[in-house]
Amino acid sequence: MSVVAREILLNSRPAGTPTLDTFRKAERRLPAPGEGQLLVRTLWMSVDPYMRGRMRDQPSYIAPFQVGEPLEGSAVGVVEESRAEGFAKGDVVSHFAGWRDHAVIDAAGVTKVDLDAAPAEAWLGPLGVPGFTAYIGLERIGGLKAGETVFVSAAAGAVGSMAVQIAKAKGARVIASVGSAEKAAWLRELGADAVVNYKTATDLTAALREAAPEGIDVYFDNVGGNHLDAALAVAKNSARVVISGMIAGYNEEQPAEVMHNLASIIVKRLSLRGFIVLDHYDLYPQFSAAMIGWLKDGKVTSRDTVHEGLDNAPKAFLGLFSGDNTGKMLVRLADR
Amino acid sequence: MSVVAREILLNSRPAGTPTLDTFRKAERRLPAPGEGQLLVRTLWMSVDPYMRGRMRDQPSYIAPFQVGEPLEGSAVGVVEESRAEGFAKGDVVSHFAGWRDHAVIDAAGVTKVDLDAAPAEAWLGPLGVPGFTAYIGLERIGGLKAGETVFVSAAAGAVGSMAVQIAKAKGARVIASVGSAEKAAWLRELGADAVVNYKTATDLTAALREAAPEGIDVYFDNVGGNHLDAALAVAKNSARVVISGMIAGYNEEQPAEVMHNLASIIVKRLSLRGFIVLDHYDLYPQFSAAMIGWLKDGKVTSRDTVHEGLDNAPKAFLGLFSGDNTGKMLVRLADR
Repeated sequence: MSVVAREILLNSRPAGTPTLDTFRKAERRLPAPGEGQLLVRTLWMSVDPYMRGRMRDQPSYIAPFQVGEPLEGSAVGVVEESRAEGFAKGDVVSHFAGWRDHAVIDAAGVTKVDLDAAPAEAWLGPLGVPGFTAYIGLERIGGLKAGETVFVSAAAGAVGSMAVQIAKAKGARVIASVGSAEKAAWLRELGADAVVNYKTATDLTAALREAAPEGIDVYFDNVGGNHLDAALAVAKNSARVVISGMIAGYNEEQPAEVMHNLASIIVKRLSLRGFIVLDHYDLYPQFSAAMIGWLKDGKVTSRDTVHEGLDNAPKAFLGLFSGDNTGKMLVRLADR
Repeated sequence: MSVVAREILLNSRPAGTPTLDTFRKAERRLPAPGEGQLLVRTLWMSVDPYMRGRMRDQPSYIAPFQVGEPLEGSAVGVVEESRAEGFAKGDVVSHFAGWRDHAVIDAAGVTKVDLDAAPAEAWLGPLGVPGFTAYIGLERIGGLKAGETVFVSAAAGAVGSMAVQIAKAKGARVIASVGSAEKAAWLRELGADAVVNYKTATDLTAALREAAPEGIDVYFDNVGGNHLDAALAVAKNSARVVISGMIAGYNEEQPAEVMHNLASIIVKRLSLRGFIVLDHYDLYPQFSAAMIGWLKDGKVTSRDTVHEGLDNAPKAFLGLFSGDNTGKMLVRLADR
């Protein structure tokens, strides 16, 4: 069987905020799967802020996207043809060949997902990189303990909404920041003890101090910039700052963050630590067992913002930087 | 015996860089020492950049100085009268009642110093807070290992010059930043493998990258601001940033550091950690044994910039912020 795949390519490297011209559609006739390979039809694909970094031609923890080549990222699909032991036609798998409707991929990079534990798309959200990032950030990097106060920025995003709920499940008090009243209402439903709307707050530091009068023990940073600066101001002594993302600067060619409170790092003996979830997969089994439990008993719920069809994947991606998503931003390509 | 002490008081809280008007001389008739107290005559006193922070009326790890009251800080003196067990007239002690020529102090806050191990003034430098700060920063906070590359800023200062030499003694490669050619020459004498003059370098990041083409494992920060930003750019993956001081911002009422490289904290999985040496005195015995050995075998040497007489203590303090000192800035009040 020979299949023509529809793919989204990197058309040009964006300067500043990407536009629809950053992307280009193309078709490609796929080879038949070789030994150890699978032909997979994509059901769902993920768009994530970190992909902006891969659009730059510079060395990083993951290779840059190449102009004229398909983008890639997390996806869930169904096996249409298997030449790999342990995989059969009809299996649902997670893989990294998103941004296309079909792909031939090495089975080594593919994981079967358990649809009894959670629906297909949940393996891109609570049980995928966003949920796992939130877990690693709180558990291993931040060392969050019950009774502590944690501040989560971009709390209505894919990672942030998971961090809020995991922190609540661990018995912490949670302050969340969001960019709209509707997101604030959702965060309260999720159990956030206080919510700051950074778009309406005239002074983010003052708003954060009011929400956490005794200070914060852990800051889970998805934003950087003024959010990080405010968190340094309101941190308790010996607080831990978990640097998971800095979306505020992702579209800047020369980010220039004006920081007023860096000296707090000394005076309050703070620690700041950045991490990439790829380094922490030893904890994935422990995480997934916990998360499946939280999903079953309702301690963690997920909300997705869904765009329909591969053609809308660029629009979905661009929406990440204008706050269009509540919860995980997903693209649905096909039904099973 | 009743003594009239000469003291330097805080005359007014400075806005921005302190001036001579920040200080005022006064005399005070001291009470006789009570039970458990000592009358001490000061031989040497220390001026340190952190004292600028105590001139602000705001809560911190140490109480603010009070207007109209004497300043305080590390000093070495000789006991003139003892009403405390274990101390006798003529003992040389380190204490915290600097900025005055005599003081009556509780023996609980006083330590006898061993003049056979090192001269009196060395207990304010290599064996005092500066040397111990350098040691804690490299050993406990930074975890520096032999063969690693460490960058030390303000390397000709009291803490920096100790950090350079301790790092060399531990077998590290050392990059130092200084603000003059004369200081650069001294740093090379101390064993620095490369020296960057931040006043003549047109691009600090480029200069640092040239000095450390493979990147830095540990950054020992005494400066903050553009030095910290450059170090983030040149850090290796998993590098550790030890935040010991940020003198660049100490005189700013509203420090505003423009940072371009904060996202490196994520991409390179960096950790940044601030510390206050007061929290780490459990390691003082281990440190002092090591430092006495390094001083004896010449692995660590010290240079002091000495101002004569209590009246010159304000001038000595102000000089810390204009780079007047090479090595430890000290004030000599009297001979033993």
